[in-house]
Amino acid sequence: MTFDDSEIDLFYRKLETRTFKKKEFLLEEGSICKFNYFIIKGVVRSFFITKNGHEKITQFAIDNWWVTNMESFIKKTPSTQYIQAVEASTVLYISRENLEELYVANPKFERLFRIIAENMLIANLRKNDVFLQMNSKDRYSDFINKLPDFIQRVPQYMIASYLEITPEYLSELRKQVT
Amino acid sequence: MTFDDSEIDLFYRKLETRTFKKKEFLLEEGSICKFNYFIIKGVVRSFFITKNGHEKITQFAIDNWWVTNMESFIKKTPSTQYIQAVEASTVLYISRENLEELYVANPKFERLFRIIAENMLIANLRKNDVFLQMNSKDRYSDFINKLPDFIQRVPQYMIASYLEITPEYLSELRKQVT
Repeated sequence: MTFDDSEIDLFYRKLETRTFKKKEFLLEEGSICKFNYFIIKGVVRSFFITKNGHEKITQFAIDNWWVTNMESFIKKTPSTQYIQAVEASTVLYISRENLEELYVANPKFERLFRIIAENMLIANLRKNDVFLQMNSKDRYSDFINKLPDFIQRVPQYMIASYLEITPEYLSELRKQVT
Repeated sequence: MTFDDSEIDLFYRKLETRTFKKKEFLLEEGSICKFNYFIIKGVVRSFFITKNGHEKITQFAIDNWWVTNMESFIKKTPSTQYIQAVEASTVLYISRENLEELYVANPKFERLFRIIAENMLIANLRKNDVFLQMNSKDRYSDFINKLPDFIQRVPQYMIASYLEITPEYLSELRKQVT
Protein backbone atom coordinates (compact mmCIF):
# COMPACT_ATOMS: atom_id res chain seq x y z
CA MET A 1 0.00 0.00 0.00
CA THR A 2 1.55 3.30 -1.11
CA PHE A 3 0.81 6.92 -0.32
CA ASP A 4 1.59 9.89 -2.55
CA ASP A 5 3.24 13.10 -1.32
CA SER A 6 -0.02 14.89 -0.56
CA GLU A 7 -1.30 11.92 1.47
CA ILE A 8 1.94 11.66 3.44
CA ASP A 9 1.78 15.41 4.02
CA LEU A 10 -1.80 15.08 5.34
CA PHE A 11 -0.70 12.26 7.66
CA TYR A 12 2.23 14.27 9.06
CA ARG A 13 -0.01 17.26 9.76
CA LYS A 14 -2.07 15.04 12.08
CA LEU A 15 0.97 13.58 13.84
CA GLU A 16 3.05 15.07 16.61
CA THR A 17 6.53 14.06 17.67
CA ARG A 18 8.16 13.73 21.06
CA THR A 19 11.20 12.20 22.71
CA PHE A 20 10.77 10.28 25.95
CA LYS A 21 13.74 9.85 28.30
CA LYS A 22 14.67 6.38 29.52
CA LYS A 23 12.08 5.24 32.13
CA GLU A 24 9.68 8.08 31.25
CA PHE A 25 6.02 7.04 30.96
CA LEU A 26 4.04 7.34 27.73
CA LEU A 27 0.98 6.16 29.66
CA GLU A 28 0.24 5.48 33.33
CA GLU A 29 -2.19 2.97 34.78
CA GLY A 30 -5.54 4.63 35.57
CA SER A 31 -5.16 7.30 32.85
CA ILE A 32 -7.02 7.33 29.56
CA CYS A 33 -4.70 6.51 26.66
CA LYS A 34 -5.13 9.49 24.32
CA PHE A 35 -2.64 8.49 21.64
CA ASN A 36 -1.49 5.76 19.30
CA TYR A 37 2.33 5.85 19.20
CA PHE A 38 4.66 4.99 16.33
CA ILE A 39 8.25 4.34 17.45
CA ILE A 40 10.71 6.20 15.21
CA LYS A 41 13.70 5.06 17.26
CA GLY A 42 13.67 3.47 20.67
CA VAL A 43 12.22 0.70 22.82
CA VAL A 44 9.09 0.85 24.97
CA ARG A 45 7.35 -1.75 27.09
CA SER A 46 3.78 -2.25 28.33
CA PHE A 47 3.37 -3.71 31.81
CA PHE A 48 1.06 -3.90 34.79
CA ILE A 49 1.69 -4.28 38.51
CA THR A 50 0.50 -7.61 39.94
CA LYS A 51 -1.39 -7.95 43.23
CA ASN A 52 1.95 -8.97 44.78
CA GLY A 53 3.60 -5.75 43.60
CA HIS A 54 5.63 -7.26 40.76
CA GLU A 55 5.88 -5.85 37.25
CA LYS A 56 4.49 -8.13 34.52
CA ILE A 57 5.56 -7.14 31.01
CA THR A 58 2.95 -7.81 28.32
CA GLN A 59 4.49 -6.20 25.22
CA PHE A 60 7.61 -4.60 23.75
CA ALA A 61 7.73 -2.23 20.80
CA ILE A 62 10.81 -1.00 18.90
CA ASP A 63 11.53 1.06 15.76
CA ASN A 64 8.66 1.04 13.24
CA TRP A 65 6.12 -0.54 15.59
CA TRP A 66 2.82 1.02 16.66
CA VAL A 67 1.96 0.78 20.35
CA THR A 68 -1.02 1.92 22.42
CA ASN A 69 -3.39 0.55 25.03
CA MET A 70 -6.07 -0.33 22.51
CA GLU A 71 -9.03 -0.71 24.87
CA SER A 72 -8.30 2.59 26.65
CA PHE A 73 -7.60 4.38 23.35
CA ILE A 74 -10.76 3.15 21.60
CA LYS A 75 -13.23 3.05 24.50
CA LYS A 76 -11.78 6.01 26.45
CA THR A 77 -11.64 3.92 29.63
CA PRO A 78 -8.81 4.07 32.23
CA SER A 79 -5.81 1.98 31.19
CA THR A 80 -4.98 -1.11 33.26
CA GLN A 81 -1.35 -0.91 32.11
CA TYR A 82 1.67 1.38 31.90
CA ILE A 83 3.65 2.15 28.75
CA GLN A 84 7.23 3.17 29.55
CA ALA A 85 10.40 4.01 27.59
CA VAL A 86 13.04 1.28 28.09
CA GLU A 87 15.62 3.52 26.41
CA ALA A 88 15.39 7.14 25.17
CA SER A 89 12.71 6.90 22.48
CA THR A 90 11.54 9.24 19.74
CA VAL A 91 7.95 8.69 18.69
CA LEU A 92 5.29 10.03 16.40
CA TYR A 93 1.85 10.03 17.98
CA ILE A 94 -1.71 10.67 16.87
CA SER A 95 -4.83 11.42 18.89
CA ARG A 96 -8.11 9.56 18.48
CA GLU A 97 -9.71 12.76 17.08
CA ASN A 98 -6.97 13.33 14.49
CA LEU A 99 -7.15 9.70 13.48
CA GLU A 100 -10.94 9.99 12.93
CA GLU A 101 -10.31 13.11 10.80
CA LEU A 102 -7.79 11.19 8.70
CA TYR A 103 -10.28 8.35 8.15
CA VAL A 104 -12.86 10.84 6.91
CA ALA A 105 -10.38 12.78 4.76
CA ASN A 106 -9.10 9.71 2.93
CA PRO A 107 -10.29 6.08 3.21
CA LYS A 108 -6.73 4.85 2.57
CA PHE A 109 -6.02 5.68 6.21
CA GLU A 110 -8.99 3.60 7.26
CA ARG A 111 -7.41 0.78 5.26
CA LEU A 112 -3.97 1.36 6.80
CA PHE A 113 -5.29 1.22 10.34
CA ARG A 114 -7.54 -1.76 9.56
CA ILE A 115 -4.41 -3.62 8.48
CA ILE A 116 -2.49 -2.39 11.56
CA ALA A 117 -5.32 -3.58 13.86
CA GLU A 118 -5.36 -6.98 12.12
CA ASN A 119 -1.59 -7.31 12.49
CA MET A 120 -1.76 -6.34 16.17
CA LEU A 121 -4.46 -9.00 16.62
CA ILE A 122 -2.39 -11.63 14.80
CA ALA A 123 0.69 -10.80 16.93
CA ASN A 124 -1.42 -11.11 20.07
CA LEU A 125 -3.03 -14.40 19.06
CA ARG A 126 0.38 -15.77 18.11
CA LYS A 127 1.73 -14.80 21.52
CA ASN A 128 -1.18 -16.65 23.16
CA ASP A 129 -0.40 -19.74 21.08
CA VAL A 130 3.25 -19.59 22.14
CA PHE A 131 2.37 -19.34 25.83
CA LEU A 132 -0.23 -22.11 25.68
CA GLN A 133 1.73 -24.56 23.55
CA MET A 134 5.44 -24.09 24.27
CA ASN A 135 7.70 -24.71 27.24
CA SER A 136 10.05 -21.91 28.31
CA LYS A 137 12.97 -23.10 26.18
CA ASP A 138 10.81 -23.17 23.03
CA ARG A 139 9.30 -19.78 23.94
CA TYR A 140 12.81 -18.32 24.07
CA SER A 141 13.83 -19.91 20.72
CA ASP A 142 10.63 -18.64 19.13
CA PHE A 143 11.27 -15.14 20.50
CA ILE A 144 14.83 -14.91 19.14
CA ASN A 145 13.78 -16.33 15.76
CA LYS A 146 10.83 -14.00 15.29
CA LEU A 147 12.15 -10.88 17.03
CA PRO A 148 15.98 -10.98 16.83
CA ASP A 149 16.27 -7.18 17.14
CA PHE A 150 14.62 -7.24 20.55
CA ILE A 151 17.26 -9.52 22.08
CA GLN A 152 19.95 -6.92 21.37
CA ARG A 153 18.03 -3.97 22.76
CA VAL A 154 15.87 -5.13 25.64
CA PRO A 155 17.47 -5.93 29.04
CA GLN A 156 17.53 -9.65 29.81
CA TYR A 157 15.49 -9.39 32.99
CA MET A 158 12.67 -7.74 31.00
CA ILE A 159 12.69 -10.51 28.39
CA ALA A 160 12.51 -13.02 31.26
CA SER A 161 9.46 -11.19 32.68
CA TYR A 162 7.78 -11.15 29.27
CA LEU A 163 8.49 -14.86 28.64
CA GLU A 164 7.52 -15.80 32.21
CA ILE A 165 10.82 -17.48 32.98
CA THR A 166 13.37 -16.66 35.69
CA PRO A 167 16.36 -14.46 34.77
CA GLU A 168 18.66 -17.33 35.87
CA TYR A 169 17.01 -19.79 33.50
CA LEU A 170 17.09 -17.22 30.67
CA SER A 171 20.83 -16.89 31.22
CA GLU A 172 21.16 -20.69 30.92
CA LEU A 173 19.08 -20.70 27.73
CA ARG A 174 21.24 -17.98 26.17
CA LYS A 175 24.30 -20.16 26.65
CA GLN A 176 22.58 -23.14 25.01
CA VAL A 177 20.98 -21.35 22.08
CA THR A 178 23.61 -18.78 21.06
CA MET B 1 -22.46 3.30 11.93
CA THR B 2 -25.44 2.78 9.59
CA PHE B 3 -25.81 1.31 6.13
CA ASP B 4 -28.53 2.16 3.62
CA ASP B 5 -30.50 -0.45 1.66
CA SER B 6 -28.16 -0.46 -1.33
CA GLU B 7 -25.12 -0.93 0.92
CA ILE B 8 -26.77 -3.78 2.82
CA ASP B 9 -27.75 -5.31 -0.51
CA LEU B 10 -24.13 -5.08 -1.71
CA PHE B 11 -22.94 -6.74 1.52
CA TYR B 12 -25.42 -9.62 1.22
CA ARG B 13 -24.40 -10.27 -2.37
CA LYS B 14 -20.85 -10.96 -1.11
CA LEU B 15 -21.99 -13.20 1.74
CA GLU B 16 -22.97 -16.85 1.66
CA THR B 17 -24.96 -18.75 4.23
CA ARG B 18 -24.63 -22.27 5.60
CA THR B 19 -25.81 -24.37 8.52
CA PHE B 20 -23.30 -26.56 10.35
CA LYS B 21 -24.47 -29.56 12.34
CA LYS B 22 -23.42 -30.00 15.96
CA LYS B 23 -19.72 -31.05 16.05
CA GLU B 24 -19.21 -30.21 12.36
CA PHE B 25 -15.98 -28.33 11.58
CA LEU B 26 -15.94 -24.83 10.07
CA LEU B 27 -12.15 -25.09 9.92
CA GLU B 28 -9.64 -27.88 10.56
CA GLU B 29 -6.09 -27.57 11.80
CA GLY B 30 -3.63 -27.50 8.91
CA SER B 31 -6.15 -26.01 6.45
CA ILE B 32 -6.12 -22.43 5.23
CA CYS B 33 -9.02 -20.47 6.71
CA LYS B 34 -10.81 -19.11 3.65
CA PHE B 35 -13.69 -17.34 5.41
CA ASN B 36 -14.66 -14.88 8.10
CA TYR B 37 -17.85 -16.21 9.75
CA PHE B 38 -20.73 -14.28 11.30
CA ILE B 39 -22.89 -16.40 13.60
CA ILE B 40 -26.58 -15.83 12.87
CA LYS B 41 -27.67 -18.42 15.41
CA GLY B 42 -25.51 -20.95 17.17
CA VAL B 43 -22.37 -21.53 19.18
CA VAL B 44 -18.91 -22.36 17.84
CA ARG B 45 -15.58 -22.85 19.56
CA SER B 46 -11.94 -22.51 18.51
CA PHE B 47 -9.49 -25.02 19.96
CA PHE B 48 -6.20 -26.78 19.37
CA ILE B 49 -4.88 -30.19 20.37
CA THR B 50 -2.04 -30.05 22.89
CA LYS B 51 1.09 -32.20 22.66
CA ASN B 52 -0.55 -34.48 25.26
CA GLY B 53 -3.60 -34.93 23.06
CA HIS B 54 -5.98 -32.72 25.04
CA GLU B 55 -8.30 -30.12 23.54
CA LYS B 56 -7.55 -26.55 24.64
CA ILE B 57 -10.37 -24.12 23.90
CA THR B 58 -9.23 -20.59 23.04
CA GLN B 59 -12.47 -18.88 22.01
CA PHE B 60 -16.25 -19.17 21.87
CA ALA B 61 -18.56 -17.27 19.53
CA ILE B 62 -22.37 -17.06 19.66
CA ASP B 63 -25.12 -15.14 17.82
CA ASN B 64 -23.92 -11.86 16.30
CA TRP B 65 -20.21 -12.57 16.76
CA TRP B 66 -17.62 -12.77 13.99
CA VAL B 67 -15.18 -15.65 14.18
CA THR B 68 -12.24 -16.73 12.04
CA ASN B 69 -8.62 -17.79 12.42
CA MET B 70 -7.27 -14.32 11.73
CA GLU B 71 -3.66 -15.25 10.94
CA SER B 72 -4.64 -18.03 8.55
CA PHE B 73 -7.37 -15.87 6.94
CA ILE B 74 -5.14 -12.81 6.42
CA LYS B 75 -1.79 -14.46 5.67
CA LYS B 76 -3.18 -17.57 3.91
CA THR B 77 -1.08 -19.85 6.15
CA PRO B 78 -2.28 -23.21 7.57
CA SER B 79 -4.41 -22.77 10.68
CA THR B 80 -3.03 -24.01 14.01
CA GLN B 81 -6.55 -24.37 15.36
CA TYR B 82 -9.94 -25.94 14.69
CA ILE B 83 -13.27 -24.09 14.60
CA GLN B 84 -16.20 -26.41 15.40
CA ALA B 85 -19.95 -26.05 15.92
CA VAL B 86 -20.88 -26.66 19.58
CA GLU B 87 -24.56 -26.76 18.61
CA ALA B 88 -26.24 -26.62 15.17
CA SER B 89 -25.20 -23.19 13.89
CA THR B 90 -26.33 -21.02 11.00
CA VAL B 91 -23.69 -18.63 9.75
CA LEU B 92 -23.04 -16.01 7.11
CA TYR B 93 -19.53 -16.17 5.71
CA ILE B 94 -17.38 -14.09 3.41
CA SER B 95 -14.21 -14.97 1.52
CA ARG B 96 -11.04 -12.87 1.64
CA GLU B 97 -11.54 -11.98 -2.04
CA ASN B 98 -15.13 -10.83 -1.59
CA LEU B 99 -14.12 -8.81 1.45
CA GLU B 100 -11.40 -7.04 -0.58
CA GLU B 101 -14.00 -6.30 -3.27
CA LEU B 102 -16.30 -4.79 -0.64
CA TYR B 103 -13.49 -2.56 0.68
CA VAL B 104 -12.86 -1.26 -2.82
CA ALA B 105 -16.56 -0.81 -3.63
CA ASN B 106 -17.29 1.23 -0.53
CA PRO B 107 -14.87 2.44 2.19
CA LYS B 108 -17.61 2.09 4.82
CA PHE B 109 -16.86 -1.63 4.78
CA GLU B 110 -13.19 -0.90 5.39
CA ARG B 111 -14.36 1.10 8.39
CA LEU B 112 -16.68 -1.67 9.60
CA PHE B 113 -13.94 -4.30 9.47
CA ARG B 114 -11.39 -1.92 11.02
CA ILE B 115 -13.75 -1.58 13.97
CA ILE B 116 -14.38 -5.36 14.07
CA ALA B 117 -10.59 -6.02 14.09
CA GLU B 118 -10.11 -3.50 16.90
CA ASN B 119 -12.89 -5.09 18.92
CA MET B 120 -11.44 -8.57 18.36
CA LEU B 121 -8.07 -7.23 19.55
CA ILE B 122 -9.62 -5.61 22.63
CA ALA B 123 -11.46 -8.85 23.50
CA ASN B 124 -8.21 -10.77 23.15
CA LEU B 125 -6.14 -8.34 25.23
CA ARG B 126 -8.86 -8.34 27.89
CA LYS B 127 -8.76 -12.15 27.99
CA ASN B 128 -4.97 -12.00 28.47
CA ASP B 129 -5.43 -9.53 31.35
CA VAL B 130 -7.95 -11.85 32.98
CA PHE B 131 -5.64 -14.86 32.73
CA LEU B 132 -2.59 -13.00 33.99
CA GLN B 133 -4.26 -11.12 36.82
CA MET B 134 -7.11 -13.25 38.16
CA ASN B 135 -7.37 -16.54 40.03
CA SER B 136 -9.80 -19.15 38.73
CA LYS B 137 -12.71 -17.98 40.92
CA ASP B 138 -12.37 -14.39 39.68
CA ARG B 139 -11.98 -15.61 36.09
CA TYR B 140 -15.29 -17.42 36.40
CA SER B 141 -17.06 -14.38 37.94
CA ASP B 142 -15.64 -12.16 35.21
CA PHE B 143 -16.83 -14.60 32.54
CA ILE B 144 -20.42 -14.77 33.83
CA ASN B 145 -20.58 -10.99 34.26
CA LYS B 146 -19.24 -10.15 30.81
CA LEU B 147 -20.65 -13.08 28.82
CA PRO B 148 -23.81 -14.25 30.61
CA ASP B 149 -25.32 -15.71 27.42
CA PHE B 150 -22.42 -18.11 27.05
CA ILE B 151 -23.03 -19.78 30.41
CA GLN B 152 -26.50 -20.86 29.28
CA ARG B 153 -25.41 -22.24 25.94
CA VAL B 154 -21.92 -23.71 26.28
CA PRO B 155 -21.42 -27.07 28.06
CA GLN B 156 -19.72 -26.71 31.45
CA TYR B 157 -16.72 -28.86 30.58
CA MET B 158 -15.94 -26.54 27.65
CA ILE B 159 -16.13 -23.45 29.85
CA ALA B 160 -13.77 -25.22 32.27
CA SER B 161 -11.30 -25.88 29.42
CA TYR B 162 -11.49 -22.26 28.28
CA LEU B 163 -10.98 -20.88 31.80
CA GLU B 164 -8.25 -23.44 32.55
CA ILE B 165 -9.98 -24.85 35.62
CA THR B 166 -11.10 -28.40 36.34
CA PRO B 167 -14.76 -29.31 35.66
CA GLU B 168 -15.06 -30.30 39.35
CA TYR B 169 -13.89 -26.88 40.54
CA LEU B 170 -16.18 -25.16 38.03
CA SER B 171 -19.09 -27.09 39.49
CA GLU B 172 -18.08 -25.87 42.99
CA LEU B 173 -17.84 -22.28 41.75
CA ARG B 174 -21.30 -22.45 40.16
CA LYS B 175 -22.78 -23.36 43.55
CA GLN B 176 -21.00 -20.45 45.24
CA VAL B 177 -21.65 -17.75 42.63
CA THR B 178 -25.18 -18.52 41.42
